Amino acid sequence: MSERVVVIGGDAAGMAAASQARRLKKAGELEIVVFERGHFTSYSACGIPYWVGGDVGDRDDLIARTPAEHRERGIDLRLRTEALEIDVPGRRVRARDLESGDETWTGYDKLVIATGAAPIRPPLPGIDAAGVHGVQTLDDGQELIDSLDSARGREAVVVGAGYIGVEMAEALINRGFRVTMINRGSEPMSTLDPDMGVLIRKAMQGMGISVIGDTEVTGLRTDGEGRVRAVGTGAAEYPADIVVLGLGVHPATDLARAAGLPLGAYGGLLTDRAMRVRGHENIWAGGDCVEVLDLMSGAERHIPLGTHANKHGQIIGSGVGGDYATFPGVVGTAVSKVCDLEVARTGLRERDARAAGLQYVTVVIESTSRAGYFPDAAPMTVKMLAERRTGRLLGVQIVGREGAGKRIDIAAVALTAGMTVEQMISLDLGYAPPFSPVWDPVLVAARKALTAVRQHP
Amino acid sequence: MSERVVVIGGDAAGMAAASQARRLKKAGELEIVVFERGHFTSYSACGIPYWVGGDVGDRDDLIARTPAEHRERGIDLRLRTEALEIDVPGRRVRARDLESGDETWTGYDKLVIATGAAPIRPPLPGIDAAGVHGVQTLDDGQELIDSLDSARGREAVVVGAGYIGVEMAEALINRGFRVTMINRGSEPMSTLDPDMGVLIRKAMQGMGISVIGDTEVTGLRTDGEGRVRAVGTGAAEYPADIVVLGLGVHPATDLARAAGLPLGAYGGLLTDRAMRVRGHENIWAGGDCVEVLDLMSGAERHIPLGTHANKHGQIIGSGVGGDYATFPGVVGTAVSKVCDLEVARTGLRERDARAAGLQYVTVVIESTSRAGYFPDAAPMTVKMLAERRTGRLLGVQIVGREGAGKRIDIAAVALTAGMTVEQMISLDLGYAPPFSPVWDPVLVAARKALTAVRQHP
Repeated sequence: MSERVVVIGGDAAGMAAASQARRLKKAGELEIVVFERGHFTSYSACGIPYWVGGDVGDRDDLIARTPAEHRERGIDLRLRTEALEIDVPGRRVRARDLESGDETWTGYDKLVIATGAAPIRPPLPGIDAAGVHGVQTLDDGQELIDSLDSARGREAVVVGAGYIGVEMAEALINRGFRVTMINRGSEPMSTLDPDMGVLIRKAMQGMGISVIGDTEVTGLRTDGEGRVRAVGTGAAEYPADIVVLGLGVHPATDLARAAGLPLGAYGGLLTDRAMRVRGHENIWAGGDCVEVLDLMSGAERHIPLGTHANKHGQIIGSGVGGDYATFPGVVGTAVSKVCDLEVARTGLRERDARAAGLQYVTVVIESTSRAGYFPDAAPMTVKMLAERRTGRLLGVQIVGREGAGKRIDIAAVALTAGMTVEQMISLDLGYAPPFSPVWDPVLVAARKALTAVRQHP
Repeated sequence: MSERVVVIGGDAAGMAAASQARRLKKAGELEIVVFERGHFTSYSACGIPYWVGGDVGDRDDLIARTPAEHRERGIDLRLRTEALEIDVPGRRVRARDLESGDETWTGYDKLVIATGAAPIRPPLPGIDAAGVHGVQTLDDGQELIDSLDSARGREAVVVGAGYIGVEMAEALINRGFRVTMINRGSEPMSTLDPDMGVLIRKAMQGMGISVIGDTEVTGLRTDGEGRVRAVGTGAAEYPADIVVLGLGVHPATDLARAAGLPLGAYGGLLTDRAMRVRGHENIWAGGDCVEVLDLMSGAERHIPLGTHANKHGQIIGSGVGGDYATFPGVVGTAVSKVCDLEVARTGLRERDARAAGLQYVTVVIESTSRAGYFPDAAPMTVKMLAERRTGRLLGVQIVGREGAGKRIDIAAVALTAGMTVEQMISLDLGYAPPFSPVWDPVLVAARKALTAVRQHP
């Protein structure tokens, strides 16, 4: 007898789950129904800034697998269909066809919630005006590009200075806009400590982006046609033909909340190790709508990232298909390109370590991505946190140029393995002059951190 | 009362040891005498191919610290001074001033042996002819460059296809020579399995290097002035105005052998964890003249690499200076640039695993260094070995382009931590479209390896 799984959400986590389940169970064993509100499936939201900026030429390049390809694999994919209600005791989902307006209930044996995240839109005057854009879905990206093409002037304001804000500021510069970035914090990229964030601000300013820190947006001024004209901060007003919101996202869990499913402090669904919603053996959740265990602090966090969503989907699909896989948690690794800088981080910032009750030493070193004498050897800065006394690695932040960013993976694996900075010093890393100084910059930081640990018993 | 340490050898290991000891002990506490046979100290031998090839403009760029700088730090550095004999019971070293010919005995309380390695020169007719060069020391590099400038023709033959051979072949092409590389093995870079080595051969052929595999050199033909003219292989003869030997190196341990110190199967000195020569509390050894513990096979190996030599020196200097540090061993990581390819390896090849009594599965995957839709996304090939049943990672080999090589560090840290391929799948690695697909290529390989492990219980 065939079972039915209903998947709510057709991007990375949802479609990876559906695909993996289909690999494990044939159509006669498992019926797979996917509801997707938008027009697209399995796309790279992380690629949207590069599409807007022109590095990626075509929207369809961002689509890993089309609806037709999914359907060919025996997945009943229903686009432009919005899930409205989950009836947990009744094991059914109410959904609306956004074209026809028809609503139907669909029963399930197993349910996968992959509703993603939504950009934070603070309740400010003018926030919903034409020309104000979030950048979360491919539909959002298409709207933004259409809006850029029809913009009356070339003034853009980016509100927020996280990854998306910073990437979008660069994309808009590449599109020929004058860009102002307004940031609540003192420095861009609050995922880094401010002493590293300052390096990013300087690079952005160097390419002509106006970076306004320590500033809250108080409202957006619109014209008679309801189109945004300026962004106000109380003290000042910045002209704006386009506004991009880069204030982060929150988990899209209204459906889950209404269904009484367990949510965490950040509003994300809480799951067990197998990505099942806690207390529900037949409901899974993954991707940007869940909270994940931060292995460094021991607490849940909301980290919307395509790489996690894909892993979650794979694990959920294994569980739905009767196989076994688990997600142990994250160490908080992220990497980004800002102008010609590569920016990366993993583990705890200083404030995270303090909040987790950890005492630490911190060091900052300057080195180069290649042997110092090699052509194109470029400076890179590494900040490292190690636990007081034990010397256990707690976190690393890197700002540099070509070849700097992915070095964060050394630290990410070392964090996962629970290594001390003294153990790290002996790591047998790849060395040759085009790739590294004889002491890799991460090891230089580890050496200095060990000295600091020994000086602060 | 002041102690004296004598250091034999003034390159990476020796000078790192001297410098670290000096950091820990003032001149009044510890006298440091270094004997160096050549003209240079603390230089990057690994950089010589790039100097010969023209990427590095000036010989002095390769020198990390000059003799004068060492002397300013209170190190009694004696250049052009060759150690001839170690009298272990008498705690003294006999050395000759190569300029004056004077010989003297110098007593020591502590001894550091850092005599490095010497290129293998098989006893072939003509092997010592003018125009035949090893590339081990900075003096060697200078001789080769002088020889290139005075070469009568533009035919070069590289004998051997290891890292140095391959790098030198490219350097000679860059210098405008026609290059033939003659290799005993079937494919270049026997540090990789042949199914990966073939990718390197094709790249080298693509840049016009003639690669002759499965071939032994039988002799070198010289002209009346004793200068090399051709390289013979029995079946054929290859014209040669310049011959570069890239047949590897052997530990330079004649002194140590004569002194009765313990050597391993590869002729390298054997040390304890603190880099002290086994059985000798006051004699340390490090760098290219020692054998190191291979953590993957559990056996000693000879791995001459500047990065290990620098670590050894640091550890030896700590021990000599009364501090404490140890070297746990290596996993066998190496990275290299060949034409536009990045080549990397860590852990065990198939033949190593078999020799160690390990049963394994092996997978090869193709992926890209960046998100597939991102500009300059380049193909990369990853081969992975995992232990049968346990799924423990045993080795990784990577051949790709920009951004491929240093990914080997992910595997190097995972090997050190003893991770299984299933644990690797969950690694929280840096992801953004300019840096990686959502599944990093190393994780794609780990996923496939897990499947293979499960299929071969």
